[in-house]
Amino acid sequence: MSATFRLAERLAENRPLVSAWCGMPTPETAGLLAAEAFDAVTLDMQHGAIDFREVLQAIPLVAAHGKPTVVRVPVGAFATASRVLDAGAAGIIAPMINSVADARALVAYTKFPPVGERSWGPAGALALNGLQPPQYFQRANDAVMVLAMVETRAALDIVDEILAVDGLDGIFIGPADLSITLSGGAGVNPAAPEVDEALDHALARTRAAGKRIGVYAHIPERAALFKSKGFDFVAASSDANFMRAGARALLGGLAG
Amino acid sequence: MSATFRLAERLAENRPLVSAWCGMPTPETAGLLAAEAFDAVTLDMQHGAIDFREVLQAIPLVAAHGKPTVVRVPVGAFATASRVLDAGAAGIIAPMINSVADARALVAYTKFPPVGERSWGPAGALALNGLQPPQYFQRANDAVMVLAMVETRAALDIVDEILAVDGLDGIFIGPADLSITLSGGAGVNPAAPEVDEALDHALARTRAAGKRIGVYAHIPERAALFKSKGFDFVAASSDANFMRAGARALLGGLAG
Amino acid sequence: MSATFRLAERLAENRPLVSAWCGMPTPETAGLLAAEAFDAVTLDMQHGAIDFREVLQAIPLVAAHGKPTVVRVPVGAFATASRVLDAGAAGIIAPMINSVADARALVAYTKFPPVGERSWGPAGALALNGLQPPQYFQRANDAVMVLAMVETRAALDIVDEILAVDGLDGIFIGPADLSITLSGGAGVNPAAPEVDEALDHALARTRAAGKRIGVYAHIPERAALFKSKGFDFVAASSDANFMRAGARALLGGLAG
Amino acid sequence: MSATFRLAERLAENRPLVSAWCGMPTPETAGLLAAEAFDAVTLDMQHGAIDFREVLQAIPLVAAHGKPTVVRVPVGAFATASRVLDAGAAGIIAPMINSVADARALVAYTKFPPVGERSWGPAGALALNGLQPPQYFQRANDAVMVLAMVETRAALDIVDEILAVDGLDGIFIGPADLSITLSGGAGVNPAAPEVDEALDHALARTRAAGKRIGVYAHIPERAALFKSKGFDFVAASSDANFMRAGARALLGGLAG
Amino acid sequence: MSATFRLAERLAENRPLVSAWCGMPTPETAGLLAAEAFDAVTLDMQHGAIDFREVLQAIPLVAAHGKPTVVRVPVGAFATASRVLDAGAAGIIAPMINSVADARALVAYTKFPPVGERSWGPAGALALNGLQPPQYFQRANDAVMVLAMVETRAALDIVDEILAVDGLDGIFIGPADLSITLSGGAGVNPAAPEVDEALDHALARTRAAGKRIGVYAHIPERAALFKSKGFDFVAASSDANFMRAGARALLGGLAG
Amino acid sequence: MSATFRLAERLAENRPLVSAWCGMPTPETAGLLAAEAFDAVTLDMQHGAIDFREVLQAIPLVAAHGKPTVVRVPVGAFATASRVLDAGAAGIIAPMINSVADARALVAYTKFPPVGERSWGPAGALALNGLQPPQYFQRANDAVMVLAMVETRAALDIVDEILAVDGLDGIFIGPADLSITLSGGAGVNPAAPEVDEALDHALARTRAAGKRIGVYAHIPERAALFKSKGFDFVAASSDANFMRAGARALLGGLAG
Ligand SMILES: [Mg+2]
Ligand SMILES: [Mg+2]
Ligand SMILES: [Mg+2]
Ligand SMILES: [Mg+2]
Ligand SMILES: [Mg+2]
Ligand SMILES: [Mg+2]
Repeated sequence: MSATFRLAERLAENRPLVSAWCGMPTPETAGLLAAEAFDAVTLDMQHGAIDFREVLQAIPLVAAHGKPTVVRVPVGAFATASRVLDAGAAGIIAPMINSVADARALVAYTKFPPVGERSWGPAGALALNGLQPPQYFQRANDAVMVLAMVETRAALDIVDEILAVDGLDGIFIGPADLSITLSGGAGVNPAAPEVDEALDHALARTRAAGKRIGVYAHIPERAALFKSKGFDFVAASSDANFMRAGARALLGGLAG
Repeated sequence: MSATFRLAERLAENRPLVSAWCGMPTPETAGLLAAEAFDAVTLDMQHGAIDFREVLQAIPLVAAHGKPTVVRVPVGAFATASRVLDAGAAGIIAPMINSVADARALVAYTKFPPVGERSWGPAGALALNGLQPPQYFQRANDAVMVLAMVETRAALDIVDEILAVDGLDGIFIGPADLSITLSGGAGVNPAAPEVDEALDHALARTRAAGKRIGVYAHIPERAALFKSKGFDFVAASSDANFMRAGARALLGGLAG
Repeated sequence: MSATFRLAERLAENRPLVSAWCGMPTPETAGLLAAEAFDAVTLDMQHGAIDFREVLQAIPLVAAHGKPTVVRVPVGAFATASRVLDAGAAGIIAPMINSVADARALVAYTKFPPVGERSWGPAGALALNGLQPPQYFQRANDAVMVLAMVETRAALDIVDEILAVDGLDGIFIGPADLSITLSGGAGVNPAAPEVDEALDHALARTRAAGKRIGVYAHIPERAALFKSKGFDFVAASSDANFMRAGARALLGGLAG
Repeated sequence: MSATFRLAERLAENRPLVSAWCGMPTPETAGLLAAEAFDAVTLDMQHGAIDFREVLQAIPLVAAHGKPTVVRVPVGAFATASRVLDAGAAGIIAPMINSVADARALVAYTKFPPVGERSWGPAGALALNGLQPPQYFQRANDAVMVLAMVETRAALDIVDEILAVDGLDGIFIGPADLSITLSGGAGVNPAAPEVDEALDHALARTRAAGKRIGVYAHIPERAALFKSKGFDFVAASSDANFMRAGARALLGGLAG
Repeated sequence: MSATFRLAERLAENRPLVSAWCGMPTPETAGLLAAEAFDAVTLDMQHGAIDFREVLQAIPLVAAHGKPTVVRVPVGAFATASRVLDAGAAGIIAPMINSVADARALVAYTKFPPVGERSWGPAGALALNGLQPPQYFQRANDAVMVLAMVETRAALDIVDEILAVDGLDGIFIGPADLSITLSGGAGVNPAAPEVDEALDHALARTRAAGKRIGVYAHIPERAALFKSKGFDFVAASSDANFMRAGARALLGGLAG
Repeated sequence: MSATFRLAERLAENRPLVSAWCGMPTPETAGLLAAEAFDAVTLDMQHGAIDFREVLQAIPLVAAHGKPTVVRVPVGAFATASRVLDAGAAGIIAPMINSVADARALVAYTKFPPVGERSWGPAGALALNGLQPPQYFQRANDAVMVLAMVETRAALDIVDEILAVDGLDGIFIGPADLSITLSGGAGVNPAAPEVDEALDHALARTRAAGKRIGVYAHIPERAALFKSKGFDFVAASSDANFMRAGARALLGGLAG
């Protein structure tokens, strides 16, 4: 019924989601992609050009299509995670969670007591979902999906401990950063064999922990691969890439 | 050398242009499409969600790729045409020019005396192009392409008179509105046979008048057709359509 | 089903509407008021601080509550009326329609052929309502409510002729301007007796013409009066006044 | 007492004003210049990059220094003139008033009945000045300075008729456009001898008519000249020029 | 004299303040409420939709009414506290100060040496208040009110230690979060008896420490209670609630 | 060739740079100053009114003049440093680096592995510079200039250790904060003798370490002094000061 809670409901039914990925500083883009066959829309505040105001404006445009908005916050921006949850975001992807302490801090800012220490004040989420405060308070800790990005060797080494953090719903793999760290800084290649090994390992450990795992696919082929492997949440390509692809399809047909 | 003047130069060399078409309220979209193989970017203030501020911000982003920006203004918004030329736009598309008086008013606002009555104050264009006032004044009337939209039966009936208006560089056909008027309001079909007849007629009359003709293509197939027919300026599809097409290509590959 | 068409449906059922009135430059305000028991939200671009961008952003926030957005455009801004209809507005209130020619120009910009000359390009409305172009084209002329403001002695004198203009859905009375003109410029008093006489006259003439009549109520008492008189569309007070009233209620309780 | 009325008060005391001229799309610039020794700040919506929103935001920042804001609107944008007066602007400069009909239309949109037909709704001005509606209504026609730009040969030829238009407070000379028209479109030179002759003539005719005359000075030398000639309102240089001048002063000192 | 310093002056006179509470992303709302009988306006960046830009724009609008602006920053956003003080904010409310280390960090970012480590650069505050740098530097540490939010059991347990932190002006109670923590995460009820007990205790301890105490009242009844108890700073309800209350008052009168 | 890399190239050639300093919340200001004879433009997010969105928009406007943009981030805002580098900034100035741990954290967020831990995602920088990911990855650590602000006594005491941090390109002196700390909080005087001594000391230690040193000059005289002393990067005055200086030059000429 409520767009914000759709994400948790889908996962509870073991139905994986494919999410659009947005980095352009315009809320209308998110709304446009929500009208397509994606299950969710993810807004990237870490590497995208999206800031707090655009997130605020995009969430209701995505919700108008009955779909949840997930937000990737900048590194360490846990207070921002709280703010976008207040605005009605359905999930948080937090980059560079490299220690159990990082993971616990993430939970502290995104789950209400007694699980975490999230502060009360979800005016936007209440308005979006038509809930009264007690209802939202009771449901929010379950409904909000909080994923810790595992994208360094350090994080991979303690993936079980991260997955065991109470209140954390799962992990999200960043293949590009992972490729950099796994190559010792030699280069970036999100489809490198060692990245795929790490992905398989992380998927297996997540399943063992009974939690959720998401992943970013920079190209359609990778999205198809990740979907077939059974990842719970596959965020693919980007608004900019979609636009480029559409433009190139037209221009290719006009050339020659 | 200067992005603003690239449009006139291309036309002087009898090299037709293909333009992206933008309606989303974000200047970054225009910049992204300028990086693709389009010859120009057109911003739609009539039916798009673009307002003055976005045009101001988009023009330098397009110019950074050495390409001209064309602006379609709202109906009758000739003063807005002056303002976007001041900001460095290379061309104007003015909708619903249905009389010679309309066409003359358009020229009055977009060409300096003695051709028209455009008021002096091109601060943005000077800054963008690195010109001094006398240089810009001497070149602007030739460099700025002003196209009157012919998109009603009334306009078609007097297309020769419109084309004869001094200072007007040519016409631009709007197939959707033309289809409505040619069907007597029965429906909208930009690819109707009577539209194609009108397009051929307008093209022939433009050639006879020694002026320029542009057209909007709502789908790639029409863009290819119009290019093959020899239209001088083919504006195709839209930023939103490109994004949708790219998203659907991904989603199609993931389905089933 | 579609928020844009709710307005026409309500009127077709002879169920009068009460609308919030917004002048603050923030789309969120419109969304907040749409969540209250208003039947519609009206955005004031004439005397309010609202510009095109805010209208674009407010329409989907109001539609999220299943309610239509009406826009009062600035004097003579008929092209702006077209633009906000493209964005999904359900109705237009056009100020200072003082002649039949004004009324016809208003219709020309807001109704498609053969009734008017509205240009095709409702991308926002299609996206908002999930319609295909032919559906929207067939329904738009009936669904969009276009009201001419009658607010001068000159307009009152020809109210029958204005009401007779084909394609115009009705009139909207502006009591403040009416009071100025009826007093010969002596002062402003929207509740003056001569204003009430004029309102009754206009209501009677509208009923005789089988069209619709709206009115602006600057205070709650007037809204109640107009509702009891049977006006079809009563727009009341304003976002700023609501905020002031709420603040004063609190402060009154704290004083002393 | 009220910033909006300061302009009329100064003119009533026969004390000429020097105004800053702003074209950058940022309200803070206007506030910064209001803190300097200017008597007023003028915002240029015709050739500047300023739109409605920036005017709304700049007016209170200028008023915070007890100074009036004047707005130059785009050509023919009389409805915009009404809107910025509603927001608290103290004066309007309207470009390209080339006929008595133009001048009358300008007055119609900027003065209340019985002088003109300005529509009631000055919410911003009331809030800014702390006035009640009756007070503002009584004072506004006198307090708002409306100047018609005389900047073509056609306008010069009928300057007496323009000055005679009831409700018009005076004229404002645009030397650049005047130089273009006086040279028959040969070039732009705001300090050409024929421009100076025209300025002297316009000044004399204005004095004969008992009205006010303003002028734009593109460089400091011209501002000094105009001030010494006794122009009532001298608007000088621009925010961008001030910034450039300040930067060049620094850079000059660092060079070599 | 200066709006920024009004807050400290009021407190020095032992005159409690009632503040409006703003969460809507529009600076005009803050200005509107400043015109009412509030003593201050508080902008909520933690749970409100307000970001840095809106704070920058709201401060002068509030100051135009001679009133101070207080800003509640997000959790841990001490650098943001510095930035809004630079812009002329008169006070800071910092949420979730749960340790003496948190309180000291807050002081470090908001008080100049030797009390704290606030970095120099108050351009906005200087412009707003018309002060020279030495004047502002001498007065700022006394004039800026810095309140640490006590809203967890952990904070309550060490309230004396927090109050003892040098440079901290006092505390601010958040009843909603307090109710969550005091109930062990069972629910949210800002008017629960244990909250009231905690409030009385915190008030007594603040008086014993000779510092200041503020509190948030979510409904008017609580504001009246807190005022009667002698809290120094009572922030009440919200801009959104005021607007809803005003709208409901109108709608209630129209129903039936 | 690429604006982003121009900064590193200049420094590699031992050619010092003079940078404009911007604090006004408008990207156009940065573009305007880039057109002057500055070698770079620095945007101040710490004490200026500039936020993330303005940085994003300013970078391409500065790059259009072939010049690099440097960004001073707020205290501790290392994640923001990553974000503006993603957008194409050429350098980072980080305030209040008072320990080796601070300096290492700064490097972690601004240099890719193996030097630091910067996360991959430079979409803006790639678009701006026309590079492919592997090219940017290989060049970014060298091309991005990261300067730690040394502006407290604590930092001065360990300046050698800070300069020794691997991946840090150098330091940047903040004379105002330095004067506060060196005076024990007695006052602010960026041209105090002890500040000059500290500057000379820092310059000598930087040369000994083979790294780079920048400094802020609040007035032109200090900029000239610092340039003559051989500082690598002198950022001078500010956009606001330039505008004031230009306005005062005009007004001075008009007075009397
Ligand atoms: Mg990553
Ligand atoms: Mg058309
Ligand atoms: Mg009216
Ligand atoms: Mg002119
Ligand atoms: Mg709290
Ligand atoms: Mg500093």
